[in-house]
Amino acid sequence: MEPDIELAAALFADLGAATRKGRGIVRDSYGAGEQAAHDIMRSAAGAMDLEVSVDAIGNLMMTLPGSERDAPGLLIGSHLDSVPQGGNFDGAAGVVAGLCALSGLRQAGIVPRVDISVMAIRGEESSWFDISYIGSGGAFGLLDPACLAVPRSDNGRSFESALLECGFDPGAIRERRRLLDPARIRAYLELHIEQGPTLVEMGLPAAVVTAIRGCQRFRNARCFGRYGHSGTLSRAYRQDAVAATVALLHHMESVWIRYERAGADLVFTVGELSTDPALHAPSKVAGETRFVLDIRSASDATMREVVAEARAAAKCIGDEYRVRFELGDTSDSPAAVMDTRLRARLMGLLDRPFEMASGAGHDAAVFAKVGIPSAMIFVRNENGSHNADETMNLEDFAVASRALIRLLVEFPC
Amino acid sequence: MEPDIELAAALFADLGAATRKGRGIVRDSYGAGEQAAHDIMRSAAGAMDLEVSVDAIGNLMMTLPGSERDAPGLLIGSHLDSVPQGGNFDGAAGVVAGLCALSGLRQAGIVPRVDISVMAIRGEESSWFDISYIGSGGAFGLLDPACLAVPRSDNGRSFESALLECGFDPGAIRERRRLLDPARIRAYLELHIEQGPTLVEMGLPAAVVTAIRGCQRFRNARCFGRYGHSGTLSRAYRQDAVAATVALLHHMESVWIRYERAGADLVFTVGELSTDPALHAPSKVAGETRFVLDIRSASDATMREVVAEARAAAKCIGDEYRVRFELGDTSDSPAAVMDTRLRARLMGLLDRPFEMASGAGHDAAVFAKVGIPSAMIFVRNENGSHNADETMNLEDFAVASRALIRLLVEFPC
Repeated sequence: MEPDIELAAALFADLGAATRKGRGIVRDSYGAGEQAAHDIMRSAAGAMDLEVSVDAIGNLMMTLPGSERDAPGLLIGSHLDSVPQGGNFDGAAGVVAGLCALSGLRQAGIVPRVDISVMAIRGEESSWFDISYIGSGGAFGLLDPACLAVPRSDNGRSFESALLECGFDPGAIRERRRLLDPARIRAYLELHIEQGPTLVEMGLPAAVVTAIRGCQRFRNARCFGRYGHSGTLSRAYRQDAVAATVALLHHMESVWIRYERAGADLVFTVGELSTDPALHAPSKVAGETRFVLDIRSASDATMREVVAEARAAAKCIGDEYRVRFELGDTSDSPAAVMDTRLRARLMGLLDRPFEMASGAGHDAAVFAKVGIPSAMIFVRNENGSHNADETMNLEDFAVASRALIRLLVEFPC
Repeated sequence: MEPDIELAAALFADLGAATRKGRGIVRDSYGAGEQAAHDIMRSAAGAMDLEVSVDAIGNLMMTLPGSERDAPGLLIGSHLDSVPQGGNFDGAAGVVAGLCALSGLRQAGIVPRVDISVMAIRGEESSWFDISYIGSGGAFGLLDPACLAVPRSDNGRSFESALLECGFDPGAIRERRRLLDPARIRAYLELHIEQGPTLVEMGLPAAVVTAIRGCQRFRNARCFGRYGHSGTLSRAYRQDAVAATVALLHHMESVWIRYERAGADLVFTVGELSTDPALHAPSKVAGETRFVLDIRSASDATMREVVAEARAAAKCIGDEYRVRFELGDTSDSPAAVMDTRLRARLMGLLDRPFEMASGAGHDAAVFAKVGIPSAMIFVRNENGSHNADETMNLEDFAVASRALIRLLVEFPC
């Protein structure tokens, strides 16, 4: 049996036609764009005669009944919202993959042992509402009720009013109601486009995800030196915040390379760095810098080690340069490790098996967090995501979808 | 014979009393504060029966006649203006030193062979008018007449109107008139407080200046990489402007250390450094940085070499990090090398001879530029200069003044 790639092609075309605005895709979370995508999926599910339901916060569940309806089922999911002016595949590919797997099973006349559901998840992107994992977090009663007051980024109206306008129930979030029971879900599977260039560069159509990287971030790191005259201060007498910061960041790059060589998963980024525009000058030794250190890894232990290395280096380099680093606290989100057995099975189903960590967050992180064995498969995608140029081709999508449908058929074996 | 340190003490007290405003000193260039200082010096010169004159742009010349009045004379000079809320010694110490040398000669009954003049120079600091070396540059007809339109920083009135209000003649600048003939000046000598911590740290009262450092500055250096997702981009695929800039700056520090170890004079400063506030983010690999490289040396050759090293490193590191550096052109001011014979003589007159470069600019640079043999002696000073806390003690001043008066007496020998 094969996934129904013709259905996929038709759904991607419908999604693009309904939600493209100018060059890019606009499927605004809890707005008209996201709803249009939900309507397309719901209509396809109806045509396939799947059982359809919508939960209190708008997640759409489309189920192919199994022979043992009381047994915990399998869930295939992803989100249907996009970023403003995003691409057609980020999120939607996972929902489409679920539907073409179910269509493939139907076409092959297979009745699965347990229910297999495709879940079209609401609000995964945090572009319109600055709330992480609205649909999946809300389904497990994990959202902070305070999020109901968060304004929509473009029109300022609250998340609560958006829910009400769509006909959903803010009470579910206010009461932290659990809409999905983890004990009823045997496994969660998510197909998603890769959002980096790795598969393109390696010439591979798909990859199994090892973990969704966590992040430990020094959001407000600072270095305090002393301003001085650039001409009159010898090196020995400087308390140069720029020189010290450069030394620290250079050291941290060498730490990264060391971990990389040892085979550890790690990315280290300084996305913001600045002297003080109010006080700096071309002819002044800098008395202060501010910067952000973003440390991500599929391993919480690796992140902890690198954070400790940064603190130790800041102390040592601070002494050497006669400055004081204040790295501050880190804001932490832990890594979400994918299920080892599911990973191994998916690897076995790829002709050219390859594993990699996911640097971006996905709903799968929430399912893993509540204890559901979860797995992800990445599809090659050109030009990154979150932009109008993202490009996934259907052959690659078929390779990943084929692994997915085979996993469903063999499950549990 | 000895310099008249009692006179110096009295003059510093008078200067402080007349020009202190709050904690700091305010001797605004071509304003009431600078004029008060000129009046004090002029009055002291009158009491010593020196010949006194004021040139077309307000420089005050106080002359002890020599026995050969037609021979080129010796000039001791410095400026009397300050920065806003500056200290009592920056500039004024050199004029006071000249007067106490002449007073010492008078007291010892010495008539010098050639005229010895003390020149109280106008407007050396560029705080109120953004014009370099107004008094000394103007005396040699070197100022761009366009400077007459430069506004005073606090009240916006033009430099020309300030000249007129003081009773001076803007025509001298407009016509680039030469008010001093370099051929009539045998040597220029300037005593000045050190504006860095070197003499304090070394426990030395005074130093002979080797040269006034020049400066080659990359004012608008930039690095162009490519913005990307900090989580999804492996090191191998990044075009990280911050990482590349850190690598370049770290390399340039190692270049500095190499020159330092080889005994070359060099200071290297990055006073401004920033990612783009409009586009950077904690979770984005940085696509751009802007920074300033300030390279100073007593040797023009050293500056040229270090500029070439920066360009070569930017090319090489740019390739390595897949980014493009645009360092742009440098704005250059050449080093002003002090006269070798005068330096050697001054060194011979110090009990603990020590030579160092001047990182800040001084009027001596202008005199050297027009071909007059020039020399400078630095006096130890605590807490740097250009602030209310600058502190020079009279014992150190006496050490330097003694070398100065002896040089005058022995000149030419």
